[in-house]
Amino acid sequence: MHPTKLKHLAKLRSVLAPEELSFAPEVVAAHAGDKWFASHPPDVVALPRSTEAVSRILRFATKHEVPVTARGAGHGYVGGCVPVRGGIVLSLACMDRILEINARDFVAVVQAGAITKKLQDRVEKRGLFYPPDPASRKDSSIGGNIVTNAGGPRCLKYGVTRDYVLGLEVVLANGEILRLGGRTHKNKTGFELHRLFVGSEGLLGVVTEATLKLLPLPPFRACLAIGFSEMRQAIGSLHAIFAAGFLPAALEVADAFTLTAAYRRTGSQRLQGCRAHLIVELDGQEASVRSEIRALQALLTAQSPLFVERGLGADACEDVWKIRREFSYALRDTGLTKLNEDIVVPRGRLAELFRFAARLQRKHGLQVACFGHAGDGNIHTNIMVDFNQPGARERSQSALNELFEQVLAWGGAITGEHGIGLAKNPWWPQAVSPAVLQLHQTVKQALDPQGILNPGKFV
Amino acid sequence: MHPTKLKHLAKLRSVLAPEELSFAPEVVAAHAGDKWFASHPPDVVALPRSTEAVSRILRFATKHEVPVTARGAGHGYVGGCVPVRGGIVLSLACMDRILEINARDFVAVVQAGAITKKLQDRVEKRGLFYPPDPASRKDSSIGGNIVTNAGGPRCLKYGVTRDYVLGLEVVLANGEILRLGGRTHKNKTGFELHRLFVGSEGLLGVVTEATLKLLPLPPFRACLAIGFSEMRQAIGSLHAIFAAGFLPAALEVADAFTLTAAYRRTGSQRLQGCRAHLIVELDGQEASVRSEIRALQALLTAQSPLFVERGLGADACEDVWKIRREFSYALRDTGLTKLNEDIVVPRGRLAELFRFAARLQRKHGLQVACFGHAGDGNIHTNIMVDFNQPGARERSQSALNELFEQVLAWGGAITGEHGIGLAKNPWWPQAVSPAVLQLHQTVKQALDPQGILNPGKFV
Repeated sequence: MHPTKLKHLAKLRSVLAPEELSFAPEVVAAHAGDKWFASHPPDVVALPRSTEAVSRILRFATKHEVPVTARGAGHGYVGGCVPVRGGIVLSLACMDRILEINARDFVAVVQAGAITKKLQDRVEKRGLFYPPDPASRKDSSIGGNIVTNAGGPRCLKYGVTRDYVLGLEVVLANGEILRLGGRTHKNKTGFELHRLFVGSEGLLGVVTEATLKLLPLPPFRACLAIGFSEMRQAIGSLHAIFAAGFLPAALEVADAFTLTAAYRRTGSQRLQGCRAHLIVELDGQEASVRSEIRALQALLTAQSPLFVERGLGADACEDVWKIRREFSYALRDTGLTKLNEDIVVPRGRLAELFRFAARLQRKHGLQVACFGHAGDGNIHTNIMVDFNQPGARERSQSALNELFEQVLAWGGAITGEHGIGLAKNPWWPQAVSPAVLQLHQTVKQALDPQGILNPGKFV
Repeated sequence: MHPTKLKHLAKLRSVLAPEELSFAPEVVAAHAGDKWFASHPPDVVALPRSTEAVSRILRFATKHEVPVTARGAGHGYVGGCVPVRGGIVLSLACMDRILEINARDFVAVVQAGAITKKLQDRVEKRGLFYPPDPASRKDSSIGGNIVTNAGGPRCLKYGVTRDYVLGLEVVLANGEILRLGGRTHKNKTGFELHRLFVGSEGLLGVVTEATLKLLPLPPFRACLAIGFSEMRQAIGSLHAIFAAGFLPAALEVADAFTLTAAYRRTGSQRLQGCRAHLIVELDGQEASVRSEIRALQALLTAQSPLFVERGLGADACEDVWKIRREFSYALRDTGLTKLNEDIVVPRGRLAELFRFAARLQRKHGLQVACFGHAGDGNIHTNIMVDFNQPGARERSQSALNELFEQVLAWGGAITGEHGIGLAKNPWWPQAVSPAVLQLHQTVKQALDPQGILNPGKFV
């Protein structure tokens, strides 16, 4: 950054408490990126303790035209909070209080930096339920979940983060503090402007506080893990489950490559020869869940599975999900770099997606591991690359291009829950028409006319 | 309208087919309002048959700065589609085709003018389910439901119209045709701009087509109707249902005034002495629903109800809901004018709301009938007025003012499912802060800089 601008930045000290600002190289380095590989150091890290401090930072940034990149816990998967133009990183990590959990109104009020799993544990102790369950929820924050509209396995039945955001406190680029929406479960007062900030990836404003909808905690959970010798059977099972009128809490799939890696890691005899794997979870009243899981088991037996494992109750369910978590570790064990693409296809295209992924493997000599949220067509398609191999970079690039092109041709989406960030930016112009791109720019220009919020991203 | 402008409007003939345009007085009169009392005739009615025709109308209107008020089936309750500044009424009634119902992708693609109930019947024949169920669904259109973000009893469990909108075709004020969102159940590609048009009451663009999410049709339904001698017991039952981990498909309440009117209409002995009434509906797998409805009945018996009536299966449920529908007719039978306010309170304030409504009755000498979607705090609070009585207008006005003031003080909303339109416009400035109002204007200005879309409304 230009020395004059750096001098300006030092003036931030006058509007913030000493602990709210850091130029220390190790702090700056720790705020250069997220879980994706790209990084770029900011010039300064602001760690505000109040919405008013966030407002002062943004007013300062507007006045001096300094880029501001907000971040929650920094656990994004697409480089969304990499401050590519330097300037100020505005971390909400110190604004992490759970302000209210109300068991009569079924709402929680939380600051943006609150860790999602901590909120979930707190509300569940009160017999309440905040369903969105991104894999990162032990590390990621509500604010980060909101601006990426985070999903997770349970979103099949329960919807994504957006569906739980009743109200938001947002600070606009000019420093103005707004309280949008409210605390009622229904609300048709004006435009749904609070939801415009959901999924906005820090480009339209800074979310400082959220009022979230809670549900009654389902008293019981049960799940099935089913192994098949062919993916065709798993897809057939999935369609049979929906056709019988079930909307499971979760419906997860894994493919042969993932299962082979999991077999190598765990040595589980069950996974030997297993080329497709489903997890189905139900929740609700105990008697209902018990009877429905039996009905599901009967339904799935018709597809001739290799094995069916049943988990009744929360602890047994956690045991079944442990296997699912091993899948990610197993892929890491391969030593290959995992390019995790959270694509979505219309549900009817699942079988074609798995066949297409198999063709991509053969064509480009790369392993492709698919697993994820089959119920809503959101399959994490992991291109596994050994970047030490000659031509690996080019081949993986070609494979990604072909994958995204095909997904879009099917009416699918290039990202289901991670966002565009930097990772998906190359394919963003393909994913939207020029007219839709223009509307994004119109909205961005209206809310952030100087373009100080998270510059260098998709708008 | 000024004669020069009328001459301009005649030029619309050059961009539309003859059957797409009418200056006929009876057609103009039929498009002057909705189900609310206010009306204002447009200068001309356009009945386009294609999105391209909608685009031509809007380009024309932009060029000549003519107001355009879009309408679906004209069954709104707040005067939202009254063309208060005249100009063009753009009716989507002739764009009513159901273009696709896809049982593999679980989506429906429909034109904006399609009648909601027709779509629901069609998808249910395929074992699919489009849950939003506004009371007007036999008469109202999907497009109207979208721009008002319509709700209904089932929205407690299933969410409102917004939650089913995956993609939209929208025509902007300048005539540009956009396809926003997509057909996948999850999507994080850019901002959620399609949902910005949901609930926008025709102020930001014209919705011409929607891609809607469908669910598997629950195979079975059952419900309970419960009468109480005191509202306190009904509210206690409601909290007990949630505390036991139930999230019913619907949870409806009615108060003493409504029940007395229903008794007078139906002569049902059951309703005599009944001062609060709940309907609880469950849906899902048959065995589960049967066991859960028994559990609920046991739970509610603890509140000492006057009677419990059970409906098992769709036909029996319809019989129970018939009583609910009688409530509206019964209020009409009173001969009083019903000012139906679809207010929402945080769920924990329900008991206070009913007490407050009782105080309003006494204070202003007006009857107040409350019934509606208790589960999400969305109670239709009907101030019953005999406008022939001296001072009735002033007293009803005072009662409405006090009602909305109290609802807002509780953190509630002045409208849950009908929208602002003209009816709620007087209280709109109280319902939002100046900063939130300003953001509405900023967004409106960005999308409709000339202000031709539905002028004279809340922004």
